[in-house]
Amino acid sequence: MKFKGCPGFKLAGVACGLKKNNAMDLGLIYAELPANVAGVFTRNKIKAAPVLLDQERIKSGTCQAIIVNSGNANCCTGGQGMRDAIHMTQLTAAGLGISEDLVMVASTGVIGKPLPMDKIEGAIPDLIQALNLNGVADFAGAIMTTDTVPKIVVRHGEVNGNLFTITGVAKGAGMIRPDMATLLCFVMTDLKASPDQLKEMLAAAVAKSLNRITIDGDTSTNDTVLLMASGFSEAIVSESGQMAAVQPILDDVFVTLAKQLVQDGEGVTKLVEVVVKGASSDADAEQIVDTVAHSNLLKTAFFGEDANWGRIFAAVGRAGVPVDPNTIDLYFDDVLMVQDSLGCGDQAESKATAVLKKPEFTVTIDLKMGHGSASMLTCDFSIDYVKINADYRS
Amino acid sequence: MKFKGCPGFKLAGVACGLKKNNAMDLGLIYAELPANVAGVFTRNKIKAAPVLLDQERIKSGTCQAIIVNSGNANCCTGGQGMRDAIHMTQLTAAGLGISEDLVMVASTGVIGKPLPMDKIEGAIPDLIQALNLNGVADFAGAIMTTDTVPKIVVRHGEVNGNLFTITGVAKGAGMIRPDMATLLCFVMTDLKASPDQLKEMLAAAVAKSLNRITIDGDTSTNDTVLLMASGFSEAIVSESGQMAAVQPILDDVFVTLAKQLVQDGEGVTKLVEVVVKGASSDADAEQIVDTVAHSNLLKTAFFGEDANWGRIFAAVGRAGVPVDPNTIDLYFDDVLMVQDSLGCGDQAESKATAVLKKPEFTVTIDLKMGHGSASMLTCDFSIDYVKINADYRS
Repeated sequence: MKFKGCPGFKLAGVACGLKKNNAMDLGLIYAELPANVAGVFTRNKIKAAPVLLDQERIKSGTCQAIIVNSGNANCCTGGQGMRDAIHMTQLTAAGLGISEDLVMVASTGVIGKPLPMDKIEGAIPDLIQALNLNGVADFAGAIMTTDTVPKIVVRHGEVNGNLFTITGVAKGAGMIRPDMATLLCFVMTDLKASPDQLKEMLAAAVAKSLNRITIDGDTSTNDTVLLMASGFSEAIVSESGQMAAVQPILDDVFVTLAKQLVQDGEGVTKLVEVVVKGASSDADAEQIVDTVAHSNLLKTAFFGEDANWGRIFAAVGRAGVPVDPNTIDLYFDDVLMVQDSLGCGDQAESKATAVLKKPEFTVTIDLKMGHGSASMLTCDFSIDYVKINADYRS
Repeated sequence: MKFKGCPGFKLAGVACGLKKNNAMDLGLIYAELPANVAGVFTRNKIKAAPVLLDQERIKSGTCQAIIVNSGNANCCTGGQGMRDAIHMTQLTAAGLGISEDLVMVASTGVIGKPLPMDKIEGAIPDLIQALNLNGVADFAGAIMTTDTVPKIVVRHGEVNGNLFTITGVAKGAGMIRPDMATLLCFVMTDLKASPDQLKEMLAAAVAKSLNRITIDGDTSTNDTVLLMASGFSEAIVSESGQMAAVQPILDDVFVTLAKQLVQDGEGVTKLVEVVVKGASSDADAEQIVDTVAHSNLLKTAFFGEDANWGRIFAAVGRAGVPVDPNTIDLYFDDVLMVQDSLGCGDQAESKATAVLKKPEFTVTIDLKMGHGSASMLTCDFSIDYVKINADYRS
């Protein structure tokens, strides 16, 4: 597939030998002029060297290039790891003729192995040479690890009659990837927006998307999400009304990427939205959604296409928030399967089983206690997930 | 295997048709005289009817019989479920000629299906007829669900020169069982001990055993642990020194049962003790142990016999407590694989891989920050776990 680039950004991807089979494993984003930037990073206490470096550099609010490698997380690699991360940005800056402070870096792959810097150093000239306005597909391929397809979303919008583009690229799904060297996400736009505006819009978009997906509950040492604005369009975000016009488009980019991530999760055969409503508060609903969406027993039942609602109730009950055990309704899509905590019989069960045979469906839990609600996108837990993760490093 | 009974208790197990293939599914414990009793129950907010009933009846501190069925959890069964649980105790009491208030009940199996009371009612006379002093193996078989072997532990001790016996029976592992209709555990002793003493000793033993095991992190609606003391021996627990003499024997019964439960967990091929030491506090250590022991990515790596220590570090980092990311040591048994958060090289890795090929091993994480420590027994996560749980109800 050919994707048109986002004005102001050139991208590229090459193979430098970190991954097997000569697959692309080194990517670069280059902004023709320094761009405003905002980011969110893993909350894991053990952070990879590139994350620590980016967290420092993003304070300036400006970035002109992002160099990314797959095949190695550069995490738990000590002082050498930090020196390697800095060196990657120095090599990139020198090749592009820009300041090292304007270069950020991300890595993804196995934890605890030193980065083969000779391979990266040797490939950077080719990488810079390959930069082009329509390089997004190459870049998206170069940052993949166990992904089976690249994740790219392009959307357009309008602010006061001026068009703008948002192009998002991501790899690995939130918490699903082996070695937790999981989620990298880079979003480019030609909007004119300040770092603070980007920060605010990014936080809102991530809350609705990347923070609402789960595969296996493990979180990364390397999670990095960066949003860059080149300002190449005439669409200006100068006040809150304009931010409100942009936010739905940005949200759509992130929600679509999040869905692509879960859909391509390891071994995933089912995409399931879990919705909790009628909770005493949104916070309670979130805690219940989180517990249900992570239940291994429920996820294996999804894989088996078994409408085993007892497992949902048991997960609701152990979420640690008050629930009335006698008033819970449960739907698979629009099939009411349990009413007031009692099964609705064989006919409802066979309708629910039909829903579970679909590749995508929604589970709705209505506690009928109050107005709190929350939702999360999860998946099934398959034999292939175990196979992929048992054999990952071999 | 033939087990000698515990003085004062008769047990039995029969098949009443709740399970397929005419397997035993109804068990009874009968104390020849009313026994003192203590219990612990699931903390799940959604509790099965028998749990709610037992929590009322145990307040008296006295119990003379426990009727247990497998194959159906009698949970999410509404008012009828509670009437059925009470009816089970009434039928048992009538058959034994004792007060209904002295009978407790436990159920395990699928959630949300009405209990086939006709089958249970029809079998109770045979069950009572079958009671005998050496019926522990029959009882242990009757309470099994997906267990592949019965779990029975018999230990003897001495208080002031007087011998006593403790016999423990359990089914399903802590949090591993399908439908979370998981852990039932019944422990009988001929000690003379008050309900309060039993309660104190039971809490201490469970903290060291059943609360320190995990398979998949799902907790039951039906968990029930009961400790009964017949007083048939001359071993009297009348003061704290005597309790101290009994506690290690009781702990040994519970720890051995806990280990048997994990070892027979669904699809389990590896028994792994996770130890955290050098944490800032015991509470911090417990939170880290809990996160590591539940990591699906780590558990699949155990199944793959892959010493993928990056997954351990990522789990430590997301446990939500402060850690110094640069000072962590990691051992597989006594093989130091990571020192000060850096891998110890290929030789250490191949030694660690040899450890992972064993059916039982220990992972020790030393944070070198303070004196907090904790441990937990966990297992690998195998293809068979997914298979068993995907197909459970079919």
